[in-house]
Amino acid sequence: MPLYQCLSPEGLLDESTRGNLAEEITRIHCDATGIPPSFVNIIFLDMPSGRYFVAGKPAALSVLNGAIRVGRDLAIRQRILRELSQMWTRLTGQPEGELLISLWENPPGNVMEAGLIFPEIGQEQQWFVQNRDRLTELGML
Amino acid sequence: MPLYQCLSPEGLLDESTRGNLAEEITRIHCDATGIPPSFVNIIFLDMPSGRYFVAGKPAALSVLNGAIRVGRDLAIRQRILRELSQMWTRLTGQPEGELLISLWENPPGNVMEAGLIFPEIGQEQQWFVQNRDRLTELGML
Amino acid sequence: MPLYQCLSPEGLLDESTRGNLAEEITRIHCDATGIPPSFVNIIFLDMPSGRYFVAGKPAALSVLNGAIRVGRDLAIRQRILRELSQMWTRLTGQPEGELLISLWENPPGNVMEAGLIFPEIGQEQQWFVQNRDRLTELGML
Repeated sequence: MPLYQCLSPEGLLDESTRGNLAEEITRIHCDATGIPPSFVNIIFLDMPSGRYFVAGKPAALSVLNGAIRVGRDLAIRQRILRELSQMWTRLTGQPEGELLISLWENPPGNVMEAGLIFPEIGQEQQWFVQNRDRLTELGML
Repeated sequence: MPLYQCLSPEGLLDESTRGNLAEEITRIHCDATGIPPSFVNIIFLDMPSGRYFVAGKPAALSVLNGAIRVGRDLAIRQRILRELSQMWTRLTGQPEGELLISLWENPPGNVMEAGLIFPEIGQEQQWFVQNRDRLTELGML
Repeated sequence: MPLYQCLSPEGLLDESTRGNLAEEITRIHCDATGIPPSFVNIIFLDMPSGRYFVAGKPAALSVLNGAIRVGRDLAIRQRILRELSQMWTRLTGQPEGELLISLWENPPGNVMEAGLIFPEIGQEQQWFVQNRDRLTELGML
């Protein structure tokens, strides 16, 4: 966690652009929150044409849904939204008017990654210490 | 926002049915909430057979997930659920017994559309006034 | 409800493994919560390679998202997380380090299945009695 899912029109992204977007989403999330990059998960999904509608008419938007831990300051969440929106437009050429970005907050006690229950915001250091061996073995620290 | 995602068995929907469903979902949401149609986003995703299970056995259900702003009255949310369910059955022939519909509520401060943070419920008019130029340019007003 | 969505790398799962996973996810959820198996919905989605990134680099993780009713004890939620994680690794051979599992809680009043609004946790028996004819007709009781 976080997990960012990016739905976009088939053909908008090539392999190289996906790699660049993944690096930038990771950087934006880590800069805003201070977590290590090894916890940032990103998925890209292509949407065939004719499957997206706005106002009941066919459209070609991209949708980013980010699952994050509950409790981040509003300023941090909105910084992430703003930077994602501008970065996506810069790297893909798709205008901000065709982009819908949402963050979804989940209590970390509802999340298991690599067999470990996630820590609350602010309790990461203690959690890193407690699970150092496991996280090091997995290359996450 | 809202964003409705509709997962259905491959082959259930053709292009024309998708268009009709999109119009009806848009109409149902706007009638219940009063927002302009230009804010209603809808995605259709096909599921190959053998990928959906109920009670551990293969099944052929459709799943509608609607992401909406937090704070709508329960009566509005359940009106949307009921009308979506009946409308889906009417347009697709799929019985209500094969349909799972959920609304997911998100604080609008966690949502950015067209580069703009979303307003709270009840604060739309002020937000429309503040962002009139941008929204008009995008054809959303 | 619940609805479990399982995203995994294309080629990881064959038809037989999907069936076994569906049986086990259903069993784990029902053992932990006491609900009948007929309410457990599971979807599998394949992800082509090059679409999943961790730390900005291509990776091959699986993601399980479970939509459940709000209000389950933390111990029940974390039992489900732990058992899902271990079971997935046992049946697929994919190490726990490549698995991200989240539960997402929704008020049951936001959910309609088979044309019926869902009951709160603890009010199932009354709901079963009220809707016995409909649920029996659908094979859900």
